[in-house]
Amino acid sequence: MSKKADIGLIGLAVMGENLVLNMERNGFSAAVYNRTVEKVDNFINGRGKGKNFIGCHSLRELCDSLKTPRKIMMMVKAGKPVDDLIEQLIPCLEPGDILIDGGNSHYPDTIRRTKYLAGKGLRFIGSGVSGGEEGALLGPSLMPGGAPEAWPEIKPIFQAIAAKVAGGRPCCEWVGSDGAGHYVKMVHNGIEYGDMQMICEAYWIMKNILGLSAEELHDVFTEWNKGELNSYLIEITSNIFAKKDPETGKPVVDIILDTAGQKGTGKWTSQSALDLGAPAPTVAEAVFARCLSAIKEERVAASGVLTGPKPAFKGDKKAFIESVRKALYASKICSYAQGYQLMRLAAKEYNWDLQYGEIALMWRGGCIIRAQFLERIKEAFDKNPALDNLLLDDFFHGVIDNCQAAWREVVAAAVMNGVPVPAFSSALAYYDGYRSGTLPANLLQAQRDYFGAHTYERVDKERGKFFHTAWTETSGTTVSGTYTA
Amino acid sequence: MSKKADIGLIGLAVMGENLVLNMERNGFSAAVYNRTVEKVDNFINGRGKGKNFIGCHSLRELCDSLKTPRKIMMMVKAGKPVDDLIEQLIPCLEPGDILIDGGNSHYPDTIRRTKYLAGKGLRFIGSGVSGGEEGALLGPSLMPGGAPEAWPEIKPIFQAIAAKVAGGRPCCEWVGSDGAGHYVKMVHNGIEYGDMQMICEAYWIMKNILGLSAEELHDVFTEWNKGELNSYLIEITSNIFAKKDPETGKPVVDIILDTAGQKGTGKWTSQSALDLGAPAPTVAEAVFARCLSAIKEERVAASGVLTGPKPAFKGDKKAFIESVRKALYASKICSYAQGYQLMRLAAKEYNWDLQYGEIALMWRGGCIIRAQFLERIKEAFDKNPALDNLLLDDFFHGVIDNCQAAWREVVAAAVMNGVPVPAFSSALAYYDGYRSGTLPANLLQAQRDYFGAHTYERVDKERGKFFHTAWTETSGTTVSGTYTA
Repeated sequence: MSKKADIGLIGLAVMGENLVLNMERNGFSAAVYNRTVEKVDNFINGRGKGKNFIGCHSLRELCDSLKTPRKIMMMVKAGKPVDDLIEQLIPCLEPGDILIDGGNSHYPDTIRRTKYLAGKGLRFIGSGVSGGEEGALLGPSLMPGGAPEAWPEIKPIFQAIAAKVAGGRPCCEWVGSDGAGHYVKMVHNGIEYGDMQMICEAYWIMKNILGLSAEELHDVFTEWNKGELNSYLIEITSNIFAKKDPETGKPVVDIILDTAGQKGTGKWTSQSALDLGAPAPTVAEAVFARCLSAIKEERVAASGVLTGPKPAFKGDKKAFIESVRKALYASKICSYAQGYQLMRLAAKEYNWDLQYGEIALMWRGGCIIRAQFLERIKEAFDKNPALDNLLLDDFFHGVIDNCQAAWREVVAAAVMNGVPVPAFSSALAYYDGYRSGTLPANLLQAQRDYFGAHTYERVDKERGKFFHTAWTETSGTTVSGTYTA
Repeated sequence: MSKKADIGLIGLAVMGENLVLNMERNGFSAAVYNRTVEKVDNFINGRGKGKNFIGCHSLRELCDSLKTPRKIMMMVKAGKPVDDLIEQLIPCLEPGDILIDGGNSHYPDTIRRTKYLAGKGLRFIGSGVSGGEEGALLGPSLMPGGAPEAWPEIKPIFQAIAAKVAGGRPCCEWVGSDGAGHYVKMVHNGIEYGDMQMICEAYWIMKNILGLSAEELHDVFTEWNKGELNSYLIEITSNIFAKKDPETGKPVVDIILDTAGQKGTGKWTSQSALDLGAPAPTVAEAVFARCLSAIKEERVAASGVLTGPKPAFKGDKKAFIESVRKALYASKICSYAQGYQLMRLAAKEYNWDLQYGEIALMWRGGCIIRAQFLERIKEAFDKNPALDNLLLDDFFHGVIDNCQAAWREVVAAAVMNGVPVPAFSSALAYYDGYRSGTLPANLLQAQRDYFGAHTYERVDKERGKFFHTAWTETSGTTVSGTYTA
């Protein structure tokens, strides 16, 4: 065992296993370690058998098995386990070694860890990894950020194992310093929450208003995947509707309980949007929809008490399905517009020089949200790197123009038929709000000045000058100091 | 100056000034201090002239001027200023003294400060104070939490200065330990964000679809204030539409710039909802609507590029106005249902024994969201203290039954006419989601199992058993360990 490995990997759950198999297939030898060491032996004698792996039973052994500067990828649960593992690794490492966190860590942790490890002469990379188990094995999307000087060292491995799109371009580029990689991965996941929720809404409209069966829905999504909506999530949705449960013979989708969890990246995306003042309601609605799904017992009880319209449809089913497709596409564009707007504000806040076109390219393949239309986002930012909002790009507002009548029709139909479409309608409200030169916030400012003396700006005076009206007899001239509502 | 004062107050901006005048009017002598000490002299020689105040030029002087145990109310900016002030005060205090933070502090800070000061033998109260400047002067709603043993000491002052409702009941009761008071105040403000946004949406629909003028809107809101919607915010909205700008002669509302800020309590409410998994989308939409309002220049630019329908109305204007009223009322009920659901989850998380009926009573008068219908919330929890959701109370689902056809009609009309109604439509989606025994999260769980081996529960098996489908040829039996999307 004198030969040293190119890279080490810690954590042999499904993502870790598949990633390291991908590395080995691409010519990199790897040392592997797992806290429950039986997993190491199982792997070495199982999926890793006869391959270029070194199984290690301790972190010290792992570190001793690696070429220097060491490159160690951690695939462990985000949060405290990452910090604990880092502390255990530090005594085994030498200056210049590179630690890579490939989990879904929260970006403030990555910012902190990059700085902390730099103080110890170590180089830290926080990398988003998307693509699920299959992506990890066959080519994920990788979004690395952290210590920039570590990038040239890991670039050959990362770009080799990453998914490739047209022209062989790898879905992996340097994202930016400290937490940038994990931030962009977080937004990716937030967008994924939105995409999944919007597909669910399209499904629910077609099931409840049109009465489509799983078989018919399979056909619809198969068709959709041939067009503008072509994407991994539409493809797997099509496959899902075709899958039968061997036990009951029913479509699997019909025997799955309708409760989804949410604890991670979608929540963080929404919270960051709130912190940065970025209007990103569609991801938040997707997270809240999961929260609502989770309280199944309450919903079942409420369904016996609360009333609503009985869905009914008159008209051309096929035409309505096409309208649903357009509603989904337009909503999706607005959700991505929100995600990009959020990244723009984050880049400003955290001093990241984000390359928005490159990010679209990283998402073009490998990851869960991979889709044909990301090529269009890349093109939009190639044309205008300073684009304020995706909706302002000719291609995208052309799509919205083409879709919006259908989009409005579908949201209105859902509303009238009692089918909840929180993401569709929030995306539409975002669109209508964003294109409004004036919004009713003048009344809101009047209210705040009325009850809290918060002052307001005037449309007929320069910005930055604040005015106060004495709305009532008792209201004085003292303006708000400490009180904010 | 040998006579000692009943209470001390620090921070003489509009809220502090008015609160202390309220205390004095109710028979409590007060010592006052402000960091910029000129304000103290201005106050003593101005609004405080001839009244029972002691003006102090240092914290030491303030503490020396108070009866023991000292009660000191801090009305300073939330955040670091409160911590700084506490540190400056500690050397001047004795065990048993009571510090009251009446600012809009974030509840985790209040939890921390209560514990920290208890360790020093001091009693800390974090109290929500709502009502704006007028409320502070004439009777605010007060929501105190913190060290329970301090409550009897401050209760006479707090209940004396608080707003009174029918039967002379004060809008102030003990909320709960440590951060409970500030949490409930935070939710109050979140609900206030929702109320304000929904009133803005009603305004915008009537202005843009029906073409109503400020004068006509004044009449509409005046009428609404006589009925079920009777509330402070509807009342001031009515007054706002009547107010003319002396400079231009135009309605003031029409010269106010439509950009609103958001940094505080609405954001925290949404972030807490996300953390606790509470479906509270309507407050979040209200916060995001403020974010969108803030990027005025971008919106103006976008309005020249992006297209939408031209609002048009055919039909009975008066009947449509009544439908808008019903839409507002139904949306408002859903927003409050979300707020109460959130408090229920928070009470569980933080071990607070919240009295939901009492909270409604505290909000019944004095505060910004004060409204007739809060009496109904009190009644609902009196009838059933364990009520899962306001919507399940007979009164409230009766209102929804009466309003929902109009509500759907108005949201659909806004959607078709291009008027953004994010809060109305999110409230409706919440209603339709909550009353759905089944939701499309089964598809979402299938997707998560497909790409991430996340497993799912089945409708035909007991809860807590998890299943995984091998969706594709390559997918194995290894289920998700570290990876969560």
